[in-house]
Order: sequence, then C-alpha cells, then structure tokens
Amino acid sequence: MALIVQKYGGTSVGTIERIKHVARKIVATKQAGNDVVVVVSAMAGETNRLSGLARQVSESPDERECDVLLASGEQVSASLVSLAIKDLGQRARSFLGHQVRIETDSAYGRASIKSIDSTRILNALRSGEIVVVAGFQGVDEQGNITTLGRGGSDTSAVAMAAALGAGACEIYTDVEGVYTTDPSICPNARKLARISYEEMLELASTGAKVLQIRSVELAKKFSVPVHVRSTFADVVGTWLVEEDESMDSVMVSGVTYDKDEAKITVLKVPDRPGLAAQVFGSIAEAHIVVDMIIQNASEDGTTDLTFTVPKADYKNAIAIVQKIAPIIQAKGVTVDPDIAKVSIVGAGMRTHAGVAAKMFQILAREGINIEMISTSEIKISVVIDEKYAELAVRVLHEAFIEKQGVL
Amino acid sequence: MALIVQKYGGTSVGTIERIKHVARKIVATKQAGNDVVVVVSAMAGETNRLSGLARQVSESPDERECDVLLASGEQVSASLVSLAIKDLGQRARSFLGHQVRIETDSAYGRASIKSIDSTRILNALRSGEIVVVAGFQGVDEQGNITTLGRGGSDTSAVAMAAALGAGACEIYTDVEGVYTTDPSICPNARKLARISYEEMLELASTGAKVLQIRSVELAKKFSVPVHVRSTFADVVGTWLVEEDESMDSVMVSGVTYDKDEAKITVLKVPDRPGLAAQVFGSIAEAHIVVDMIIQNASEDGTTDLTFTVPKADYKNAIAIVQKIAPIIQAKGVTVDPDIAKVSIVGAGMRTHAGVAAKMFQILAREGINIEMISTSEIKISVVIDEKYAELAVRVLHEAFIEKQGVL
Repeated sequence: MALIVQKYGGTSVGTIERIKHVARKIVATKQAGNDVVVVVSAMAGETNRLSGLARQVSESPDERECDVLLASGEQVSASLVSLAIKDLGQRARSFLGHQVRIETDSAYGRASIKSIDSTRILNALRSGEIVVVAGFQGVDEQGNITTLGRGGSDTSAVAMAAALGAGACEIYTDVEGVYTTDPSICPNARKLARISYEEMLELASTGAKVLQIRSVELAKKFSVPVHVRSTFADVVGTWLVEEDESMDSVMVSGVTYDKDEAKITVLKVPDRPGLAAQVFGSIAEAHIVVDMIIQNASEDGTTDLTFTVPKADYKNAIAIVQKIAPIIQAKGVTVDPDIAKVSIVGAGMRTHAGVAAKMFQILAREGINIEMISTSEIKISVVIDEKYAELAVRVLHEAFIEKQGVL
Repeated sequence: MALIVQKYGGTSVGTIERIKHVARKIVATKQAGNDVVVVVSAMAGETNRLSGLARQVSESPDERECDVLLASGEQVSASLVSLAIKDLGQRARSFLGHQVRIETDSAYGRASIKSIDSTRILNALRSGEIVVVAGFQGVDEQGNITTLGRGGSDTSAVAMAAALGAGACEIYTDVEGVYTTDPSICPNARKLARISYEEMLELASTGAKVLQIRSVELAKKFSVPVHVRSTFADVVGTWLVEEDESMDSVMVSGVTYDKDEAKITVLKVPDRPGLAAQVFGSIAEAHIVVDMIIQNASEDGTTDLTFTVPKADYKNAIAIVQKIAPIIQAKGVTVDPDIAKVSIVGAGMRTHAGVAAKMFQILAREGINIEMISTSEIKISVVIDEKYAELAVRVLHEAFIEKQGVL
C-alpha cells in the first residue's frame, strides 16, 4: 500500500462538476489500495476575486490581512472536495494550514514552509480517512495565517509528500505534463516522459508556468518523485526525477520564453568599485527582483550597466535608477519594456560543446538580434526584441529538439 | 477609557462601500478614546451562497465540512474590515476562531461557546490595535472548526463582551432597534428604549428576528449591557438591561408572530403513561425541535396529542409520527402547515391579571379561532390560522401597546 499525495489546481476544482470529477479520481486511487492525501488550490478565479475585493477596500492593502483573506479560497475548495468524497461513500477530512500545522516564516504573501507536523494527517490516514489539505496556506510561529505566493499549492503538495515520505506526488493540472516548449506557439512541442529536477528548475525559472519554482527546489532537495499530469485525460504525464546518465544524451530538453520582463540600461557609469552595488542595493530595498545583469567592458573609463526586472516592477525600478544615476555620475537611463527572454535548457549541455554558438547562429539566420546573454551549466538565455519571441522559440525547438543531436 | 464590543451583521458589511462605512464608524469609536473589539458576520448572501455550493456537491452534506466551508465567509469579512480600518490609518488586526481561541463543543452547525481565551485580544488592544474577530465560528477541543448557527455572530459578540468585561456590546443591524412589533405589518410599531433580558428572550423565542436567542441568554447570564442599533442611522437604539420595577408598569412590551411552524396532531392516543414520551423521543432522535405541545383532557380513554415543529422539519416529523401511530394504537395523524403563532410578551404580566382573557377576547372579536395556547410567566402564545396572522398582530398591538394599560 503506497501513500500518494495528489495536488489539484484551480481549474481542476473550478466548478462543482469538476470537484465531483476530482472526487471520483481520488476515491479510485483510494480504492486501488493507496493512502491518499489531497492538496487543493482555490477554485479558478477565486484568488483574483478576493484580491480584487482587497484592492477595492484599500489601495495598498495590508499583507497580513490579505493572507487571511486569500487563505479562505483554499478553505472553501478543501471543504467542498471533502464533501464530494464523502458523498461517494468514502471517509474524508479537511485540514487547514493551522490544523495540520504547516508552519512558515512570517513573510506574508510569499512565505516559506519551515515544518509540517504530520501527526494529525497520519492519524487520519491510519483510521482509513482520505485527507484533504488546503494548499497555499500556513501559519507562522505566532499562529498568523500566511500564504506561499502564486502557485504555492504546488509547494504545499511537494512539502507534504516530503514530510510524509510519500511514494509519489501527483500534480494534476490542465495540461498533460511538461512539454518541450509551449504547444500554443509551437505545434511540434511534445510531452516529456521524464525530466531531471535541475532541468525543471531552469525551465520553471525561464518561463515554463507548469510548476512553482520553489516546489521544484523542494522536490529536488528531498528527492520527491513528482508526476505532472492531466486532471481531465487519464494518461501518464511527466515524471520529475534525479538526473541519470541517459539524460546527458539529450542536449536540449526544453525551450522557454518569458515576456514579463523589461530591460533598463544605466549609461556611462564611471568604472569604479561599489557603483553597481549602489544601484542594485536600492532596487533590492524596494523588493524588486533583478533577473539578468550585463556590464559591458569598460573603454573610456565608463561602462553601460544593463539589467532586467519584472514588467510589473519596471516603472518603480526606473524611478529608483533615475534618482541614483546623477549621484553615481552616470550619463542617463534608457528603458525597453518590449523584450523577451528565450532560453534553451538541457542537462546534456554539460557534455556537449558548441550549444551556445549553434543557438546564436540559428537566431542570426532569422535576423534576430541578441541584446543580452546569460548562461548556467544547463541553460542559455538570450534577450531579444519581443516581436521575435515566438519565431525564436519555433526555430530553436526545430533545431535542438525536433532534429535532436545534429550540431 | 471604555472597552466597546461592536457587532456588524451581514447587511452592514454586504458591499465594499458598506465595509468602508463600517470602518469609519469603528475608527470614530476608537478616536473617541475607546478600546474597540469588532465582531463581523459574513457579507450578506455569502453564507447562503456557500451552503448552496455544499448542497450542489452533496445532497446531505457532512456537518463538519460544512462548518469549514461556512466559516470562510466570516474570515473574508474580518480581513476586509481590518483592511478598511488600516486604510483609514488606524492599526487593526483580524482574529479567527482558532486564533482567539473561541472554544466550543463539537455540535457542528449549532455549537455552543465554552470558553474564550482573551489573552491575544487584550495584548492587541494594549498595543493600540483595533481587534476584528470573525463571528459565528469557533474550534472544538481537537481544533476542528465549528459554527454557532444562524445569527451566531450575535452570540460571538456577547460572549466576547462577557469574556472581556466590556462596557457595552453594540449590535449594529439594518433596523434601528427592537420594536414593539414588526413595523412592516404594523405601521404603529415603535422602537423600545429599553427591554429586560427576560422579555427579549421571549420576543426572540416567539418570532422577533433581531437577535439570536442564545446571545440573549448569554447577555442575561453575564449581565452584558447590549445596545441594538442601526448601522446606517446614527441614533440611539434599544438597550437590553436587567429588569427593574418601572418595567412592571408596562403590561405588554411586544407582539410577535411566527409563520415558520406547522402543526401535527396524533388522534385518539390511548391514555396510558409513556406513549407521549415514545412519540417525542423519536422526534428528538431526528434532531427536530418541538415547540408547543397540547394534550387534551381524556374522555373515552384516549387523547389527542397536538404539537408544532419548524416547517422545514415537518415532512420528516410526519413520517416519524405515521410510523409510530399504529405502534401506540393511535387512530391517525393530521397535519396543518398553514398556522401562525402570535405572542404577546411583557414583564408586567407578572403583576397584571386578566391579560390572557383580554387577548382571547380581542381575537374572538375579529372572528379568529384559537387552536393552541401556551403561556409562560411573561408571555402568552396562541396558534391561529396563518391567514389571520397580520390582523391578529395589529389588533393585539393596538389594544395592548397603543392603548397601553387599558384593561
């Protein structure tokens, strides 16, 4: 008898009919002889509706109270899923963050899980109950309600699987698994049977939306076998697993893109130690996350400093940088919100040379200019003009994945 | 500096605009130098919406899970009211049932408060915060979420006022106070300045909807000064206070009616000990609350047993009684859902004779037949044909309240 954690996202529990469908899947898993712990998101649209109410009440709503508000969404779906399971004749019991107790730090809106007390869950499982846990939420040491940020239920599920030593953590969603790229812009995209935690982390970090990044980090840390699959089609999805040697043979596993960043350049910054620190220190103080940073080699004793920030933060970032520019004797600030980051990810890059060169050639052949480059051991990202994003994804996917291995 | 508990009902927090209005009232109370603890209901319509979802998922939804579901309604309004207060520049903090900790028994859907741990609330007040507590909810000893039944936020507020030794418990609602009768059917109804706990208890028990019965019992038990008043009009409402001698001079304080009951008669029950117990025992097992019971004097060794139950339960009750009737050798069962209970309530009845006789005369004068009678020390209730309910209320109000004291 295995212990299986199943996570159902917002679209999977978006209507009463879907909740009933999900309940049938859960009961089938239980009747197949497994212990089942279910983690649910809020019904699709509910989190947005609640955030909307908060913004109607207050222009800059207090973060503690927002978490109390938002956590109610998962409370509703957890109880409804339990009700639906019970209606099918199985015993079920819902648990909220404070009941399980999922303890987090106090960073409202983006809290990190510190510990899970699995006693009550194990007792419920032992007595034959299906356990339904409200995802996305926890409590801090003082018992204040916290939430884990967008997609946080993925992290709740993986953390739960890790705490319980589950045999698998199934992430049920509205797509059939992890794809080599976004099927909506590249019809030749195909579902991956397996992907390593490291690759998934890079895919999630560079634009793939299927899993919250932190959930992948957690799965990697505790070696949780994660199965990303469809709520609506009964087919095998994608398994997240430890990297093995066979994976090295695949040079590129996925192509991603991200249009949610904007580029800011500080012109002719004097090439003196500490100035970059001053710029990024002020941006960090405003809780703005900088993604890529490029500093061109100095020629005339000055250097251009270019970086990207989330589009949502870029007006704020510009204001900060324009205030600092004269202080550090820079010559000005330019911005470009119309950019896209396109990335290729693959464990095989570790053993294959020339991947970057090939990527740049392919883009050059289409007349796509590369504005910034950033690499890791298993990833190459480029910033290009936003209008070429889809084209770049298609030609890179064709070259690296459809014609796999041809250098 | 006084400590004031303010309770705002569903219509008072029914829209964003109203939530902002309520926040301004709360802040004004705080700025007048008081400590303020606010208890809120769910936004108007929300509890019904959530119950509707539960019934769509399951025909007979599990009570524990329903309480988890329903409690989310007050969670939303508590956080929104806190946000609105903070938006006005005051410090505020919401608390849910498990955070305060409002401990109840485990009777899901109709739980009773056993204790309130006021430590966190007092700490918050001491640090200058306005405290906003989610009404209607608590947790049992094991930490399961419970709810207190319709109108339960009244009880939350009074219990909170009792636990904190508050100077006043203000119940804000959509009417201006407690009226001598329902103004919508009797234009001469007038607002009472004060009413004793005992009278209010009878008014609430016989049909006045302004306060949950249990909240009045609690106010009486702990002598909590309760002020029922309007959220929307800034006028003094009705104070619930200890009975004093001046109240005896008022013979009748209020006239109420209740159309939510149905009448069941078991015909020709053999006049033997234990048979009535058998009937009402089975009905109690089905958790149906019987209101009035009449047993006519025995003539031929049999007796007719008549009683009333809530209309919502009466089909269920009939089924039970029809099963028992042959067992106890009764001759049959008749039912009448088209009845109304009309009551007059007044502490002065204790010292005035002839009130019942006068009530019966007034009804007889209008040709209204009395089907059942039930009395307490300060109340007389009659069951009549439902179609005469409004007429009966008007003539009784005229005789006993508009022409006060004339016998």
